[in-house]
Amino acid sequence: MFPAMTAEGNHRAVAVFDSGVGGLTVVRSLLRTMPGEDIVYLGDSARVPYGIKSLQTVRRFAMEDAAFLGRFAPKLLVVACNTAAAAAGEAIRSVSPAPVVDVIAPGVAAALASTAGGIGVAATQATVRSGAYQRAILAVDPTREVRAVACPLLVPIVEEGRDEDDPIVNHVLCDYLHDLQRMRPGALILGCTHYPLLARAIGKLMGPQTVLISSAEAAAEEVRRHLEESGLRNPRSAGGRLECYTTDNPERFAELTERFGGRAADVVHYVGTDELETLSSSSDRNHENPR
Amino acid sequence: MFPAMTAEGNHRAVAVFDSGVGGLTVVRSLLRTMPGEDIVYLGDSARVPYGIKSLQTVRRFAMEDAAFLGRFAPKLLVVACNTAAAAAGEAIRSVSPAPVVDVIAPGVAAALASTAGGIGVAATQATVRSGAYQRAILAVDPTREVRAVACPLLVPIVEEGRDEDDPIVNHVLCDYLHDLQRMRPGALILGCTHYPLLARAIGKLMGPQTVLISSAEAAAEEVRRHLEESGLRNPRSAGGRLECYTTDNPERFAELTERFGGRAADVVHYVGTDELETLSSSSDRNHENPR
Repeated sequence: MFPAMTAEGNHRAVAVFDSGVGGLTVVRSLLRTMPGEDIVYLGDSARVPYGIKSLQTVRRFAMEDAAFLGRFAPKLLVVACNTAAAAAGEAIRSVSPAPVVDVIAPGVAAALASTAGGIGVAATQATVRSGAYQRAILAVDPTREVRAVACPLLVPIVEEGRDEDDPIVNHVLCDYLHDLQRMRPGALILGCTHYPLLARAIGKLMGPQTVLISSAEAAAEEVRRHLEESGLRNPRSAGGRLECYTTDNPERFAELTERFGGRAADVVHYVGTDELETLSSSSDRNHENPR
Repeated sequence: MFPAMTAEGNHRAVAVFDSGVGGLTVVRSLLRTMPGEDIVYLGDSARVPYGIKSLQTVRRFAMEDAAFLGRFAPKLLVVACNTAAAAAGEAIRSVSPAPVVDVIAPGVAAALASTAGGIGVAATQATVRSGAYQRAILAVDPTREVRAVACPLLVPIVEEGRDEDDPIVNHVLCDYLHDLQRMRPGALILGCTHYPLLARAIGKLMGPQTVLISSAEAAAEEVRRHLEESGLRNPRSAGGRLECYTTDNPERFAELTERFGGRAADVVHYVGTDELETLSSSSDRNHENPR
């Protein structure tokens, strides 16, 4: 079932996972600047969304996702789901043989570099509750004004295929962004991979004084930097392969790949969550209550 | 971990499962007329929602849920999730030692009895795609006008805790119900356990000529009828125990139990999806592609 792990060094794939198709926005940014890289992507569509669930359950799912991608011996592992990064970024780093880039630190660095003013964060309930963005910003600059807002309807709205001109999108954004509009932050981090698909509508509501930071783009830039510094960039300038795995219907996943990822997948495979569940370490399987 | 299975006949529990807390609306209706019954409830909150996933994945999850509840040797198994009933009602019936009541057939019977006119169905994407409601109505009366509408944002809206007077709720309902308003059906089936929590707002939009049919209430009535006809009603007139299992955070689940179920749970336990995944039969685990 799995490819032979013979590719060495810079020819190995970059592995990326997300709770569903949202992380393909990171792949889109990656391939824009590095179209020669091979990507192996896992979207856990059978258990999507992660953002409404407890951090401990998300952590277990994320560890399983990372363990699955470990089988491909990637040169780098990208945690493209903000909720997974918030719940399990450190835990994945502590066990992954490959270096790990997640979407939180790069987004925070880009936001801090873009403004001396306040920073807003729009994210899922679990990401906001984790405090990961707030902590990462205040660790660098304890004087920054930070406000994080949970926007639970935005993921289902994007997944439903509503576009930015839909009046419902506008009503929901006005509702969520009300306090952030009054705060007038210098930067707003789009702290969920689905949100860049609503960037135009969000930008219109926030006004020109607020720079929108796509954590997907910031993470892709961090991947490029890491590969270059470590001499791991694929020397090919084009022709990278995009191989996807999904825990739900692969045809449906293939249809959405182009919308979120900007190009078609070369192949989409099915992998069952039952197979993923067998991959987590015993320390994650002792039935503690999720908090 | 599990109670001794010594209770016999009418003293055994009624088992109920759903993708999350929504099925507690069925429990609420059950306990209103039969407050002496013991209920064992499973909410699969770690993998919620089912309604946006493929029917095959939902079928696998639902078979696992049913197998888990089978351990309690219930006198009756209630499939309280419309999507699970649409995807797996027949499959569960074919393997369950206990008789099975689901939410679809009772809702359809109540709708057909309430009107000679057209019947509308509001449900999740997966339920509408399955055609289960449409088939069940036309099997009884092939001349009925039937229109089923998918309403993907309603579950996240209810789970977010928005109430019926929220302008966003009204905007979203207008969007989904537009065609049904023009159809002016004699009955509208609320084909998802979350929807009764928006019944007042839906009723206002549909007008007095349309009777709203709660599949939760219709299913509870079918349970009562079944228990009485088979002599299985618990002779107690009060004091039934509500024991819940959830695959995600039990404290969060306990908080929502009162809102959806109308009363507090006596106890909420955690059970991991990894434990559920080990329960499905081998025929469901052969990694066919989900459709």
